[in-house]
Amino acid sequence: MSAPLLEARGYGIASTEKPTDFSVQSYKLKTPGPRDVTLSIEYCGVCGSDVHTVTGGWGPLAADWVVPGHEVVGFVSHVGEDAKDEFKLGQRVGVGAQVFSCLDCKRCKTDNEQYCPKMVDTYNASYSDGVLAQGGYSSAIRVDKQFVFAIPEALESEKVGPLFCAGATVYSPLVRNDVGPGKRVGIVGIGGLGHLAVQFAKALGAHVTVFSHSISKATDAIRLGADQFISTADKDFASKFQGDDELDFILITADANALPMGDLMGTLKLHHKAVAVGIPDAHTPWEIPGTALLGNGSCLGGSHIASKKEIIAMLDLAAKKNVRPWVDQILPMSEAGKAIQGVKDNKVNRSYLEHNFEPSLILYLQVRYRYVLKQDLV
Amino acid sequence: MSAPLLEARGYGIASTEKPTDFSVQSYKLKTPGPRDVTLSIEYCGVCGSDVHTVTGGWGPLAADWVVPGHEVVGFVSHVGEDAKDEFKLGQRVGVGAQVFSCLDCKRCKTDNEQYCPKMVDTYNASYSDGVLAQGGYSSAIRVDKQFVFAIPEALESEKVGPLFCAGATVYSPLVRNDVGPGKRVGIVGIGGLGHLAVQFAKALGAHVTVFSHSISKATDAIRLGADQFISTADKDFASKFQGDDELDFILITADANALPMGDLMGTLKLHHKAVAVGIPDAHTPWEIPGTALLGNGSCLGGSHIASKKEIIAMLDLAAKKNVRPWVDQILPMSEAGKAIQGVKDNKVNRSYLEHNFEPSLILYLQVRYRYVLKQDLV
Repeated sequence: MSAPLLEARGYGIASTEKPTDFSVQSYKLKTPGPRDVTLSIEYCGVCGSDVHTVTGGWGPLAADWVVPGHEVVGFVSHVGEDAKDEFKLGQRVGVGAQVFSCLDCKRCKTDNEQYCPKMVDTYNASYSDGVLAQGGYSSAIRVDKQFVFAIPEALESEKVGPLFCAGATVYSPLVRNDVGPGKRVGIVGIGGLGHLAVQFAKALGAHVTVFSHSISKATDAIRLGADQFISTADKDFASKFQGDDELDFILITADANALPMGDLMGTLKLHHKAVAVGIPDAHTPWEIPGTALLGNGSCLGGSHIASKKEIIAMLDLAAKKNVRPWVDQILPMSEAGKAIQGVKDNKVNRSYLEHNFEPSLILYLQVRYRYVLKQDLV
Repeated sequence: MSAPLLEARGYGIASTEKPTDFSVQSYKLKTPGPRDVTLSIEYCGVCGSDVHTVTGGWGPLAADWVVPGHEVVGFVSHVGEDAKDEFKLGQRVGVGAQVFSCLDCKRCKTDNEQYCPKMVDTYNASYSDGVLAQGGYSSAIRVDKQFVFAIPEALESEKVGPLFCAGATVYSPLVRNDVGPGKRVGIVGIGGLGHLAVQFAKALGAHVTVFSHSISKATDAIRLGADQFISTADKDFASKFQGDDELDFILITADANALPMGDLMGTLKLHHKAVAVGIPDAHTPWEIPGTALLGNGSCLGGSHIASKKEIIAMLDLAAKKNVRPWVDQILPMSEAGKAIQGVKDNKVNRSYLEHNFEPSLILYLQVRYRYVLKQDLV
C-alpha cells in the first residue's frame, strides 16, 4: 500500500471579519498513525456551526486560516495498519464534528467519547502535537478510525453529510431521554436541526409535537411526520398541555433566547427535561425566567453531538426509516462563501409563504433546510 | 367543642412601594371545613419570599392588603371533624408555604401535591371561594390538615419555623436527586437556604462542597458540616473537579444570575443536574452561557418546596441529626418591617469578618441566617 497523503488543499477563511472570503491553500494533514483513515472528500454539508465559527460568534479563530466543514462524505484513500479490520480502500465513509478523544477515560470507555475532556473538534482546533485540525471544505481529511463511519448503502452521498453533525446532534439527546413508542415529544424549531429531529423522533416511534413561531412551518412539520403543530405565537399555547397531554421530553433546536421558555417548559411532565442543541453566539446567553422551571420542577439541559455507537445506530435508522436531510442546494465547494451567506441569512430556511401566493393557489413548494458542497478541488 | 374562629388579626402591607409599612387589621379566615385545622400562632419565620412579595419583586400584590409569613409555628385551637384522627387541641404544629391542593390529580396522588396546578400559596393568594389566604404574621391561620405538620419534640418552637419553607425547599431537591452516602454534593451560597442545605446534605450522609463568592463564609461552611469550601472568586476553581472529584448534584441557593454558571455546571458528572431554588425577581431571568451545559450534558432544574411526606421526613431528620436554622434575632411581630428591611439589606446574612478584627484576634462570632417573629397580637 502506498504511503498516506501528507497534505490537503482546502477552502478556508483568515478572518471572522470576512467570513465569506474563502481562499484555497495547501496544508499539512494529521500526523499519520496506525489507527488513521484518510478520506478523499466528495461532499461536505454546511452546518450552523460553520457560520458561528467563521463569523466569530463562538469566539476568535484558533488559527491563522481555518477550513470549516464537519459533515464530511468521501472515499477511503488510505487505511492505517490498525484500522484495516474496519475500513477498506475505496469504501464510502463519513466524518462528523469530532476527530479525537483519549479513548482511555471513564467517559470514553462508556460510549460517551463526545464528552471526553481531551476531545478535538474537526476544525478550528489542534491535535496535541500542534498540527491543526482542518475541516471538510477540502480535498482530504485524516481521522482516527473511531470517528470514521461506514455509510449504509441506502443513504445517498449528496444527502448523507448533514446526518454526521445535525443528525447526530439531534439523535443522541432523543435516545438518551428515552424517546420512543408511547412517549410524547416536543421539537422546538424547524430548521437544519429541527427538520431532522422531527423525522428521527417519528422514526423512533414517538408522538411528535412541533413548536414554531412561524405558522408557515406547519405544512413542513406535518410532511416531516409531526402529529401536531403548535404556534408559539399563540400566547395561550401552553394551556393545551395538561394531564395526559404533558410532554415527556422537549428538544429545542432554535436559539433558546427567542423562545417563550417559561411556557415551553410548562408543557413538560413533572421533573421532565428539555435539551437545547441550538447554541447561541457566546455573547447571547440563554435567558430563563426565574419561575420557568418551578411549576413542574423541570430542567433544561445541554447535549453535545453523539457517540460512535449512537452515530452508527442513527445512520442505520435513517437508512431503514427513510430519514433524510432536506437539501436545498448542492453548490460547488468554491461557492462556500455563498452557502455560508445563505445559512447566515436564513435563506436556506426560507418559507414558501414568503412568495405571497394567493392562499387558494398555494402549491406546495418544498422548503429545504441544508446546503451541501460538492468537491471541485480534485 | 366550640365553633371555629372566624377572624384573625395580622400585620399586613398595602403597597409594594412601602414594603416595611405594616399595619394591623382584622380579616376573615378560610371558610371552615371538616378537614381544617386552626392554629393559634406563636412564631413565624421571615423568608426571602416575604421580601420578594412585599417589594413587588415577583409581581404586584394579589390583594389590597397582604399578610406575609409561611414559616408558621403555633398551637392547634380548633380541629375539624375529619382532622381529629391526626390533630389534637393544643398540639404544637407548623404550616409552610402551601395551604391547598386538589388532592385528586395525578401529582397530588403521587406525593407531589406541591406541583398541583390548583395549589394555593399560604399568602398573597385566594381560595376558590374568593376568601383570601393570609400568612403567619398574624394571630391565627386555618389550613387543610394536609398542610399542617406535627412538630417533633426535639425541635424548639422559636427555631423550627424556617424549616417549614427554607428547610422544605432545600430538602426536597436533595432527596429527589439521591443525595446520600457516597454522593458528592455542591451547595452554592450560604444564606437562609444554603445554611440549611449544607446541614441536610450532611445529615443525609453525602460529601458536601460549599461554593461561595465570600471567602468569609468558609468558617461557617465548615461549622455547618461541609467537607470542602470552594471560593468562586478563584477564577480557576472548576479545574479542581475532574474524574472522581466531579459532583453528583448541585443545589444552587444563591441567585443564579450572580454566579459563574458555566464553571459551576462544569463541576458535575456527565448528564448530572443542578437545581436552583433561589428564585430571582421576575425581571431578572437566569442567564446561562450557551456552552455552559454542553461539555458534560448537564442540566439546570427548578424545584418547588416539598410534599407532605418529605416535610415529615425532613422534620424527623432535623430532630435526629440536630439540623437547626441559625436564627439571628427573634423580634416581636410588630417589628416585621425591621425584619423585612434586615433580610432585604442582607444584614441577617452578615459576616463576622466585616467587624474588622485583627486576623489573629478573631473570635468566632456565629453568623446567623434567619429572623423569627414572636407573637405579640394576643
